[in-house]
Amino acid sequence: MAVQTVSSTTTPVNLGPAAALSCRECGERFELGPIFACALCFGPLEVAYDLPSGDPEALKKRIEAGPNNIWRYAPLLPVPADVAEKPNINPGFTKLVQADNLARELGVTGGLFIKDDSGNPTHSFKDRVVAIAVEAARAFGFTTLSCSSTGNLAGAVGAAAARAGFRSCVFIPHDLEQGKVVMAAVYGGELVGIEGNYDDVNRFCSELIGDPVGEGWGFVNVNLRPYYGEGSKTLAYEICEQLGWRLPDQIVIPIASGSQLTKIDKGLQELIKLGLVEDKPYKIFGAQAEGCSPVSTAFKAGHDVVRPQKPNTIAKSLAIGNPADGPYVLDIARRTGGAVEDVNDEQVVDAIKLLARTEGIFAETAGGVTVGVTKKLIEAGVLDPSLTTVVLNTGDGLKTLDAVAPTTGLTATIRPSVDAFRAAGLAG
Amino acid sequence: MAVQTVSSTTTPVNLGPAAALSCRECGERFELGPIFACALCFGPLEVAYDLPSGDPEALKKRIEAGPNNIWRYAPLLPVPADVAEKPNINPGFTKLVQADNLARELGVTGGLFIKDDSGNPTHSFKDRVVAIAVEAARAFGFTTLSCSSTGNLAGAVGAAAARAGFRSCVFIPHDLEQGKVVMAAVYGGELVGIEGNYDDVNRFCSELIGDPVGEGWGFVNVNLRPYYGEGSKTLAYEICEQLGWRLPDQIVIPIASGSQLTKIDKGLQELIKLGLVEDKPYKIFGAQAEGCSPVSTAFKAGHDVVRPQKPNTIAKSLAIGNPADGPYVLDIARRTGGAVEDVNDEQVVDAIKLLARTEGIFAETAGGVTVGVTKKLIEAGVLDPSLTTVVLNTGDGLKTLDAVAPTTGLTATIRPSVDAFRAAGLAG
Repeated sequence: MAVQTVSSTTTPVNLGPAAALSCRECGERFELGPIFACALCFGPLEVAYDLPSGDPEALKKRIEAGPNNIWRYAPLLPVPADVAEKPNINPGFTKLVQADNLARELGVTGGLFIKDDSGNPTHSFKDRVVAIAVEAARAFGFTTLSCSSTGNLAGAVGAAAARAGFRSCVFIPHDLEQGKVVMAAVYGGELVGIEGNYDDVNRFCSELIGDPVGEGWGFVNVNLRPYYGEGSKTLAYEICEQLGWRLPDQIVIPIASGSQLTKIDKGLQELIKLGLVEDKPYKIFGAQAEGCSPVSTAFKAGHDVVRPQKPNTIAKSLAIGNPADGPYVLDIARRTGGAVEDVNDEQVVDAIKLLARTEGIFAETAGGVTVGVTKKLIEAGVLDPSLTTVVLNTGDGLKTLDAVAPTTGLTATIRPSVDAFRAAGLAG
Repeated sequence: MAVQTVSSTTTPVNLGPAAALSCRECGERFELGPIFACALCFGPLEVAYDLPSGDPEALKKRIEAGPNNIWRYAPLLPVPADVAEKPNINPGFTKLVQADNLARELGVTGGLFIKDDSGNPTHSFKDRVVAIAVEAARAFGFTTLSCSSTGNLAGAVGAAAARAGFRSCVFIPHDLEQGKVVMAAVYGGELVGIEGNYDDVNRFCSELIGDPVGEGWGFVNVNLRPYYGEGSKTLAYEICEQLGWRLPDQIVIPIASGSQLTKIDKGLQELIKLGLVEDKPYKIFGAQAEGCSPVSTAFKAGHDVVRPQKPNTIAKSLAIGNPADGPYVLDIARRTGGAVEDVNDEQVVDAIKLLARTEGIFAETAGGVTVGVTKKLIEAGVLDPSLTTVVLNTGDGLKTLDAVAPTTGLTATIRPSVDAFRAAGLAG
């Protein structure tokens, strides 16, 4: 992997409490910059912090007085202290919905909550990670935001770049459905179709980063990845704050690359260290679709290594066959006493409808995966229904209408008369 | 029009500060109930309040300490004081986006803001009005929620009914696009296709209300309409609170039936009376699509009467050819020194793209209408660019992809190589 630096980073970079990048494998530290792999062992880099010390109650008050978005947690993120004053997409502080109807159907008595990230600006959790990448790109003097994508990320990058004043150039497979192309293109950035599949798009992006053409470009999920990933910590912060500064007992999180799950665990650990929540055990559960279940397969087999799969599932936003953070996910699930499970496409669709019917939340397929896995784990006696449980919905059903369309439609079609209505047996 | 009562309303109805229904035309007052037309003059009924008296600063503090949704304004709405404890869809407190990029493009120097209601649970402002109707339905002992709809409202009713524990039965023209049917049907209520157009659906609903079959049914936009309409007041409250308890100078509001515009004016007047904002002039501007512009046509001609039109525009959520509140809209626009203007479909599409490109907000066609009208009114010297201006986006672009699809797509398609990228002239 190429390690790239830009000349403007010779002056110290102001990314708030972010102190350095450290290698997740060997622990070596590096100055903050647009690098993502350890120069010694090629391990992934992550942000290391000088977190605020002092009275936890004062920090809580400061957070609670902040804006209704992720910038309320600026003291815990790799962003400058005045981040809320800069133009950005300002995602987060989405609803934590108390799902009493769903709890009744599933037999959960300890409290069931849906963390509903469809309320973000482009209606997926990707707005969180992109918003952080934008601030890193600004700090490093980049002028173009880029990524490879097959859906949610393209829209999130396009929208954030537009607001924040960056040029954007996003790469997608050339044969995506028209609806997805429109959602990504409407923000006015460059949207380039690559003749090939998603792997070809990724290879091309790596080539571009190493080429002079890519100078001044921030690829949110490549050379800005260490910063980008930190955005998922905000899900942990919000869940705990919205529960009244309390850790949930159980969390069910979808797995694509696995980054979101590992960063939520990191966020929970930070809250404990800072004294913002009481230290107590919590269990983290990972959710995959059966058609792309490399991590759940490894979990069930007791393996430490994740064997890549060729994805074949309707849950396309989770369809990463070779998840980079798979081994870390296995470690977290086992360490916390959780599990990794999968459901098939039919169960995904049933779970989307179950959530919609009980709570009025129309989830993306990834939300069907987490709700479906929650149901399966309760039935198997793995998830404890007497404990407080939070289930993530990371996207919006409007973006994956195809998943439910074949089995969702009119109850009846009738002539416009009360007699016809009565005859159709609908007058219950 | 049929006036319907239910027997359970003999006990006093608890809808908080709502004291009675009063006729907008003759002023006659009626007990709170599921009625919508004056028994004397057939004028429309609206909610009359006993609004809180006392220290405005104490009321502000109480509101600010409330939940991040419309229930923070419960003391000003026809809902019980403990409304936030009841299961409902909890819309509102959506972002007021400071649109500096768009302001630069339009030459606005006094501050330009987009009130972005795409952040609501089903991504349109309809969640606000439906949430209030749900509480009225609960108070009147109804068990089924219903409406006629061609889009946004069907989804909002389906979702709210699911969460709040009502049966729902929604009526739509039988030949709606499949995507819209799926969005409305996924919440699991009855969705009935009526063989006919939207007018036929409405006539059928009126027939149903007068029939024993419709007993126990709350039609959110018919027999619950006086309560339902009050939901739009929350847009006024939020805009002022988010501006720091200050009235904007100018507001641009879309016109379908005209109810939203009249209720926003009502809300602003209430804030003035309560001392929550300083009393000062403000101007209200109405926005229509040229293909359905009965109110702007009347405004420009100096008429008091609105002549019905046959709608033909891509802005389908605004396509009401005979708007019930049209005369009130004319009155408010003239009284406040505002105006009513329209833009054609091409201008609607251009405005959707302008907002997306400058602010990363992908608006529904109704948002294209308000942004387009704002631009037109500035260019005509009618809107003052040196004043604080708020523009409403009441819906989400994901629901009207067809509007922009023909002119939104890939910048280029290339082979996966840097040479091909360079050759395409994209290496800016």
